[in-house]
Amino acid sequence: MIDFSVNINPYGTPRSIIERWRNFYDIIHDYPDPKSLSLRQAIAEKENVPIETVFVGNGAAEVIHLLANTLLEKQKVIIVEPTFSEYGKACAKVDSSVISHIVTEANGWKLKADELIEQLEGVKGIFICNPNNPTGTVHEKQELLKLIKACHERHVLVFIDEAFVDFAVEDVSMKSHRATYPNVIILRSLTKMYAIAGLRLGYCLADKSIVQRLEQAQVEWSVNALAQQIGELCLKDEAFVTDTKMKIATERMRLFPLLRECGFRISDSRVNYYLMKHESISSEEWLTYFLKKGIVARHTMNFRGLKGDYLRFSIRTKEENDRLLDVIQERCSS
Amino acid sequence: MIDFSVNINPYGTPRSIIERWRNFYDIIHDYPDPKSLSLRQAIAEKENVPIETVFVGNGAAEVIHLLANTLLEKQKVIIVEPTFSEYGKACAKVDSSVISHIVTEANGWKLKADELIEQLEGVKGIFICNPNNPTGTVHEKQELLKLIKACHERHVLVFIDEAFVDFAVEDVSMKSHRATYPNVIILRSLTKMYAIAGLRLGYCLADKSIVQRLEQAQVEWSVNALAQQIGELCLKDEAFVTDTKMKIATERMRLFPLLRECGFRISDSRVNYYLMKHESISSEEWLTYFLKKGIVARHTMNFRGLKGDYLRFSIRTKEENDRLLDVIQERCSS
Repeated sequence: MIDFSVNINPYGTPRSIIERWRNFYDIIHDYPDPKSLSLRQAIAEKENVPIETVFVGNGAAEVIHLLANTLLEKQKVIIVEPTFSEYGKACAKVDSSVISHIVTEANGWKLKADELIEQLEGVKGIFICNPNNPTGTVHEKQELLKLIKACHERHVLVFIDEAFVDFAVEDVSMKSHRATYPNVIILRSLTKMYAIAGLRLGYCLADKSIVQRLEQAQVEWSVNALAQQIGELCLKDEAFVTDTKMKIATERMRLFPLLRECGFRISDSRVNYYLMKHESISSEEWLTYFLKKGIVARHTMNFRGLKGDYLRFSIRTKEENDRLLDVIQERCSS
Repeated sequence: MIDFSVNINPYGTPRSIIERWRNFYDIIHDYPDPKSLSLRQAIAEKENVPIETVFVGNGAAEVIHLLANTLLEKQKVIIVEPTFSEYGKACAKVDSSVISHIVTEANGWKLKADELIEQLEGVKGIFICNPNNPTGTVHEKQELLKLIKACHERHVLVFIDEAFVDFAVEDVSMKSHRATYPNVIILRSLTKMYAIAGLRLGYCLADKSIVQRLEQAQVEWSVNALAQQIGELCLKDEAFVTDTKMKIATERMRLFPLLRECGFRISDSRVNYYLMKHESISSEEWLTYFLKKGIVARHTMNFRGLKGDYLRFSIRTKEENDRLLDVIQERCSS
């Protein structure tokens, strides 16, 4: 079985980590630094922001839930969908009332600032995943900026989840606008690029008043010591990130035309996964066929706005992608 | 410097873990099981309870905070003090009104059920640490049972934190009463006995309706994959626990009379740490003296009911305890 359903770096964790693995044993015995200071300093330097604007969590999931707990209780919230399900879950837990703003394939899965600005009355925050999961697409910078400005004027928080930003060749991050617009919160994950999902590590860049509230709300010692140490080392391995994104981009450019030739519509992904939908055979039928052939795809039943009509695939190694192509071509030529 | 201020097993993590350390590398890449099923099964078997009554958290701290979040919001709560500070912090976060029930050295730091039962009117829950931190003392089983019964009749929850129960030679756990009294919640930590504080791992045994609420409140993937795997292996190493508790007990029996000879009053600890107070020299003075001699003690300023009058020491290896004795004897004979 090849698992194309997960979004984690197919090339695994950086070599620099396995080489030091023996040394990490000593870290497990003592309590982690509850403030994650050393890791926060490393992030602050890498992102070129003050350390007071960096908050580290036990996975991006914890950061999302703490943001909802501290800022969104019983508030009106917009979520741009289809997208990652944790925003909705976190909002539900704090009794927020959620408006789903659906973007569609017809619009290239891209948001239009004006449509969102119309809905801002009484809204406390907006969640946008960019690059988006599950489409892999990127919203237009000028549209995001227009939305951010309008939100700033109306005191609306804009949560931009950039968990997959490192996989994009172009710089699509909105982090440089944080200094001007303190209503912007940038979310990041280290678990996807560095394949350390088992360790849990995420962070956000936010106004220092927000970081203080998150710190107060976080359970003591929430970020484990191994995640702190390994996260810090991963951040230094810039060659690994560059190498990964180039290899993924190469595979993406090779793969997409071939999939289109087989009758698939493909989302204009800039990262390591994409949505696809066949012009004549249903996704349900494909899903079953793939499973029989030892290929696991991600269904999209639980993504609002998709209703299972699409399948999500991660971009894996050349050999694995070739296997996927073979299995598809076998079906199409039969 | 020798650190006597932490309560972690001085003999470190079981050998069985370091021997397998290389194999754990593969665990960090993929998401942990969000339900921690395999570990919960291992705990259920060890504790001889149904798996539905076992909840695993990212350290006992997360379990404490989730219990407060789900059960104690804006409720009246009793905390038997002096004790671990997280109960109070967790209650403060959910706007509980806390009554501190202080136990004193004069009573051997032991609670009297009748005194607590008098205060139960309108109370939702009671936190009791047993063996208690920072005293190391154990409450009388019959007093605890009397309290549990009275609480059961009045629908009051009894949270018994047994984080250090494995260090006691005698069986002082109240877990066997959970089946009869579903108002009892037993908290446990794996980070102290197995010296894996850096990994974070704790659990509780509770009525399945409570476990369900905790599961709903917990952030997805909160317990990291390494903690799950290593925790499960630690639980199997019963010889390590027996060996540790015998070595600690031997040191305790050797150490306490010698400290008393030097003019210290010692709490009747059954575990791996104790409180001490000198009959003529203040704890503040001792603390400074110890630091000069390379010994770190735990002050007790932030323990309610202690006011810094005592120092807490962990029981460490024979050589380290000897060093402590030397430093004390040097001072007392000068």
